[in-house]
Amino acid sequence: MSEKRTELEQLGEFGLIDHLTKNFENKQSSTITGIGDDAAVIFHSKKESTLISTDMLIEGVHFNLMYMPLKHLGYKAVAVNVSDICAMNGTAEQITVSIAVSSRFPVEALEELYEGIHAACDAFEVDLVGGDTTSSLSGLTISITAIGRVNSKSITYRSGAKENDLIVATGDLGGAYVGLQVLEREKQVFEASPKIQPDLDGHDYILQRQLKPEARVDVIKFLKELEVIPTSMIDISDGLASEVFHICKSSEVGCKLYDEKIPIDTETSMTAIEFNLNPVTCALNGGEDYELLFTVAQDDFEKIKGNPHMTVIGHITDKDAGKYLIDKQGAAIELQAQGWNHFED
Amino acid sequence: MSEKRTELEQLGEFGLIDHLTKNFENKQSSTITGIGDDAAVIFHSKKESTLISTDMLIEGVHFNLMYMPLKHLGYKAVAVNVSDICAMNGTAEQITVSIAVSSRFPVEALEELYEGIHAACDAFEVDLVGGDTTSSLSGLTISITAIGRVNSKSITYRSGAKENDLIVATGDLGGAYVGLQVLEREKQVFEASPKIQPDLDGHDYILQRQLKPEARVDVIKFLKELEVIPTSMIDISDGLASEVFHICKSSEVGCKLYDEKIPIDTETSMTAIEFNLNPVTCALNGGEDYELLFTVAQDDFEKIKGNPHMTVIGHITDKDAGKYLIDKQGAAIELQAQGWNHFED
Repeated sequence: MSEKRTELEQLGEFGLIDHLTKNFENKQSSTITGIGDDAAVIFHSKKESTLISTDMLIEGVHFNLMYMPLKHLGYKAVAVNVSDICAMNGTAEQITVSIAVSSRFPVEALEELYEGIHAACDAFEVDLVGGDTTSSLSGLTISITAIGRVNSKSITYRSGAKENDLIVATGDLGGAYVGLQVLEREKQVFEASPKIQPDLDGHDYILQRQLKPEARVDVIKFLKELEVIPTSMIDISDGLASEVFHICKSSEVGCKLYDEKIPIDTETSMTAIEFNLNPVTCALNGGEDYELLFTVAQDDFEKIKGNPHMTVIGHITDKDAGKYLIDKQGAAIELQAQGWNHFED
Repeated sequence: MSEKRTELEQLGEFGLIDHLTKNFENKQSSTITGIGDDAAVIFHSKKESTLISTDMLIEGVHFNLMYMPLKHLGYKAVAVNVSDICAMNGTAEQITVSIAVSSRFPVEALEELYEGIHAACDAFEVDLVGGDTTSSLSGLTISITAIGRVNSKSITYRSGAKENDLIVATGDLGGAYVGLQVLEREKQVFEASPKIQPDLDGHDYILQRQLKPEARVDVIKFLKELEVIPTSMIDISDGLASEVFHICKSSEVGCKLYDEKIPIDTETSMTAIEFNLNPVTCALNGGEDYELLFTVAQDDFEKIKGNPHMTVIGHITDKDAGKYLIDKQGAAIELQAQGWNHFED
C-alpha cells in the first residue's frame, strides 16, 4: 500500500466508481454499455439484449432492522433491482441473491427475508436463479443482481435526451422520504419510552412507499402498448433532482422543471408540512421513490397525455441554458443535486 | 419474527440455501436452471444461452488481509467467478463488482484491489460492466457476478454423469490448501516475533495457487478444439471429494477414484509432508484449487488421452455401488465430503 492516504469521503460514491474504473477497457464485442447507466447492456442480436443490474445493501447503512421488517427488506431489495432494469426499458426475468449474515440471525429471520424476496419475485414475475449464502462477522449484507431482457431497438439510456423533449415522471414523488421521517420519529419515541405504542395511523401510503416500494414494470408495459420509446430514462432512487442531473449530464443538455407540475400525493404533502419540510424539496432530494423519470419527443405527447401514471414536469433545454426549477411565481431557481451519498453518512 | 430459534449452523450452507429457496418456482420460460449448479442458465436460442454466477467474499470469513494482499484478492475474486462459468462449459464475458468498505480503507487500498480486478479482467478477457460501491460499518465485502455465454447444445451441468464415464481432473490439486498452511504458519511466526522476516522461499508455486488461482478458461477452449462435451462438470472450489459428491448427487450415480491417479504437484506433496499432512487428503478436502472436474463418455478417452492438462482419476459407477477411493493396495475407502462450511467457522 502506498504512503498516501486519500479518504473515501473525498471522492464520494460516484467519484470513487469513476476513479477506480477509469482504466478499464471493454474487450468483448457483446458489451454495449459498461459502467454509468442503470444497468449494463449485453448484446445478443438486433432483437434482443440482456440487461444486468446489481445492488448491495448493508445493515446500518442502507437499512435499519429496527424499523424495516426483514420481509419488507427482502421485497425492497428485489424491487430496487427490478426498477433498474425498468429504467433501461427492459423486463427483469431473473435475480440472484447473495446474503451474508452473522450468527445473531436465526434461520427464522432468514425465512422472513426470503418470504419478502418470494413475494417480490411473484409481484414482478422474476425467477430466483442463484446466489450465495455465507456468514458475516457482523450484521446482514444483501447483494442482488437482476437479469433482464430488452428488444435491442428499445433500449433507453440516460444519454438520449434532446432539446425540447418533455420530461415525464411516473406516479408521485417524495412519499418514501416522508415515510422514513415518520418511522424515525416513532423510533426515537420508542427509544425514549419503550412502552408507548408507535403512532403510525394515517400514514399508510407513505409508510408503504418507504417499506414496500414497487418497481414500475407496469409503466414499461404501458410504454410498449403506447408505442413510445423514451429518448432517455432513469429510475428515481436518489431524488428527482439527482436523477435529472444524471440525465442532463449523460445527454449533455439542460432542463426546466415546473414546481407545480411535480406529482406529490396529498398524504405526502400534509405529513411533510407536519415535519416542517417543503413537499417539493422532499420530492427533489428525498429519494427511494423508485418511480421512473424519462424524456419523450414532443411528437409523443399525444400518446401519453392524460395517462394517470405519467406527468409531464418540464422540458429539456440546451446545455448552456442550465438546470432550473421554475416556481409558481415564474422565478427560476437553479437546481441542486443533493442525492444520497453513502460515504457522507 | 417467530418465537422459534434455529441456529444457522444446524442447516449448514447448502442446507440453508435449499431450505430458503425450496418454495420458489420458475415463471420465465427463459429460465432453464435455477439454483443448484455452478451458474444459472438463461435461454436465448438454440445457439446461445447466458450463464450467471455470483459469489460474495467477506473479510475475516473468506479472506484475511494480513496474508492476502488486496491486489491478489481482487484477482482471485474475479477468477473464482470466471471458474464457475467455465464449469458450465461457457465463456465468461462480463463481470459486475460490488464492494462495501469501511472508512478504515483509504482510496489507495481500493486502487490496489481494482488493480487486481483489472489484471484478472485482462487475463480472462472479461469486461467490467457495472457494480456498486458503498460504505460498510466494518471490513470489506466483495460481491462479484460473472456473465457468460455458451452454445445451448454444449452446456454442461452437474447432473449428466453416466455409469462408466471417466472422471477427469484438470491441472493438479491440493496446492492452494498447502499454500494456505504456509501463509498461516508465517503469520503466527510474525505475530509472535514481528521482526522475523516471513520464510516463503521455495513455496512459490503453492503460494501462487492460494493467492492467485487461475480459472481454467484454457481447458474450455481445449475441450472445444477436441470436440469433447463433458457429460458433467463442476469446478473444484471446496476440495475434490466435495465436488465428486455434488456430481454424484446431481447425476444419481456412484464413483471410484484412484488414489495414485490424483494429480498432485511435487512442491505440494513435499510441503504437505512437512506439515504432517497427507497430500491426497489435501487434494480431497483442501479446496480453492479452481481446477475443473468433469466426466466424459469412454468413447472420448482417445481425444483427451495424454493431454497434459487433464488426468483421468476414476470412473462413474452405479449409484448403489457407493463412492469410493481405491488406495495403492487396492483397498476401497468410502469417500467423505468434508468441503468448507463457512457457517462452522
